[in-house]
Amino acid sequence: MSLGNLSTAQQLIKDHSIALTSSLAVLLSVLVFGMGWFSKPTYQPKGKHCYITGGTQGLGKALAESLVKQGAHVTVVARDVKKGERVEAELKALASPGQKVRFISADLIDSHAAEQALIQASEPFGGVAPDYVLMCAGFSRPKFFVEASSQELRDGFDGNYWVSAWTAHTAAKMMVKQRRTGKIVFVSSFLGYASFAGYSTYSPGKYALRGLADALRNEMILHNIDIHIFMPCGILGPGHDAECAEKPALTAKIEEGDTPIQPEECARYLESGLRKGHYQITDNLVCDFVRLRSNAGVPTNNVLLDTFYLLVSTIGVPIWRMTADASVKKFKKSVEADLEAKRFYDAPATTNFK
Amino acid sequence: MSLGNLSTAQQLIKDHSIALTSSLAVLLSVLVFGMGWFSKPTYQPKGKHCYITGGTQGLGKALAESLVKQGAHVTVVARDVKKGERVEAELKALASPGQKVRFISADLIDSHAAEQALIQASEPFGGVAPDYVLMCAGFSRPKFFVEASSQELRDGFDGNYWVSAWTAHTAAKMMVKQRRTGKIVFVSSFLGYASFAGYSTYSPGKYALRGLADALRNEMILHNIDIHIFMPCGILGPGHDAECAEKPALTAKIEEGDTPIQPEECARYLESGLRKGHYQITDNLVCDFVRLRSNAGVPTNNVLLDTFYLLVSTIGVPIWRMTADASVKKFKKSVEADLEAKRFYDAPATTNFK
Repeated sequence: MSLGNLSTAQQLIKDHSIALTSSLAVLLSVLVFGMGWFSKPTYQPKGKHCYITGGTQGLGKALAESLVKQGAHVTVVARDVKKGERVEAELKALASPGQKVRFISADLIDSHAAEQALIQASEPFGGVAPDYVLMCAGFSRPKFFVEASSQELRDGFDGNYWVSAWTAHTAAKMMVKQRRTGKIVFVSSFLGYASFAGYSTYSPGKYALRGLADALRNEMILHNIDIHIFMPCGILGPGHDAECAEKPALTAKIEEGDTPIQPEECARYLESGLRKGHYQITDNLVCDFVRLRSNAGVPTNNVLLDTFYLLVSTIGVPIWRMTADASVKKFKKSVEADLEAKRFYDAPATTNFK
Repeated sequence: MSLGNLSTAQQLIKDHSIALTSSLAVLLSVLVFGMGWFSKPTYQPKGKHCYITGGTQGLGKALAESLVKQGAHVTVVARDVKKGERVEAELKALASPGQKVRFISADLIDSHAAEQALIQASEPFGGVAPDYVLMCAGFSRPKFFVEASSQELRDGFDGNYWVSAWTAHTAAKMMVKQRRTGKIVFVSSFLGYASFAGYSTYSPGKYALRGLADALRNEMILHNIDIHIFMPCGILGPGHDAECAEKPALTAKIEEGDTPIQPEECARYLESGLRKGHYQITDNLVCDFVRLRSNAGVPTNNVLLDTFYLLVSTIGVPIWRMTADASVKKFKKSVEADLEAKRFYDAPATTNFK
């Protein structure tokens, strides 16, 4: 570009500064709001068969209600038959005629039971796999590692990882064999990004779900199946109450700034992320900051916002970590006193401690 | 600061520019080389009891040899008795008189066997827990998710997660009960940071190890136990050969730029990271770039270098991801043809496919 051209360009910019500024604002808004104006979301629940694990309480139940209201056919799966039948009745009350709503009781930690539940759920649909598989089952019982029994470690893992992995496995096989597309949605946690004292019973399962989802996100491009993973912070409800009942004081201290949200609000965040087509979906800003420091090799949600979050998280996440480490140091003496009171040090070295 | 002070300061800077430049260079070097000049490394294997799982081949064996040469007492644990006895003899040939070297056969996937192996290993040391517990056991058999059987998914998980988690659990309980310090070192993988097609049998276990290590890194500050996690790329040897024998062509394509290294070199990287006191230890630059996008809430290795890596990874990691996704798209047709040839689509929808 010659100098003459340059001054012509300068003149043009001067003349059209308002038009240019507005164009730039539009471009930025488009980038920030994820180009949602131009692409039709592939998340369209109306008339779809949605299969929801852990669907009788908390996030799963809130999601089931929202999906029924949007005109989806909904199958909820959980263990407790009484609770399940009550929820089924509640959901049916929200449904229009022709909408299929159903509860199936299954212990999804068992691979065979997970398979049978999906087969059973697809029967009213001529054996066709559900369109959306949303896996909300999971539980948290924070405990110190040295005080947890082998059984508690195993239960904490199975109840967060295999409870979803078997369902995802069967669903993926069904969808691919039937040459159907669909969405497989995992629910991990903030504690699937980062972890701290008390969560050795929980984070391994939530990280493992991220490992599975990361592998499948790439692999399932082969079969046009969308993989998503939700990384919520605390969700109020019976699960949260049970978690808090046994939580070590140190763990509660590290989390003291957190504000758990209602399941309905949490479900709205999840659905909003699905509409935007985000791979990793979060439900608050802190979780988004942490996401940017944990997203090796997975798609960005929004180029501009994510760049900003990354800058903040680069400074903010280490500060959070140092605060958490400082809390542990502060609790050193009281934890030791507690272990002494429980005669932990006197027990044989390898006995499971309860 | 007044203007007068400012010009005095300027004069001072002018006069002492060489001294200032050299001071700055020294300061930068100190930051870059991790302040290793001033702090004595806590990794001092001489005379320590090192307990190495998966110690009869690959990384574990290379590490055992290095530690024996450095004057450590070494217990290697693995299943294969014949191989174990051969390795024990080889290690004994490297040891000086008074150094204890021993092989124990155990299937560490079983929590009870993992416990018994540690008890057995500590007997010659008066029942005292090993000082360093280095968990190198693991294996990889990449396979497409829809073609993997439930058993393959479970074996892939157990053989990478529980094989280390049970040992870590017993070791932590022993160390804390005996009020001893020590090091617990997990071995994850690049595939514990990021994952792609073929690794649903492997990444969940390697991510889960990171989840456990992240929780324990913070929690074990309570008990002065150091937690480390090694995130190597490919390691040559029998494990790598077995992995490559069955690897899907798509998986091999995504990895085609990788250059696996010899176990001895890999062990040197691990020990170098332990000497520097790094929490997450890598064995190459690409892995370091990915680490910076996966380290939510864990300590930085080196402030200056890590900031630079973060900048590079912010651009580089998304490019890697897009390349991997493009490879999957390219393989779509050939994978489908392969599944058709295997009559995958004709089999009942939920049968395990072999």
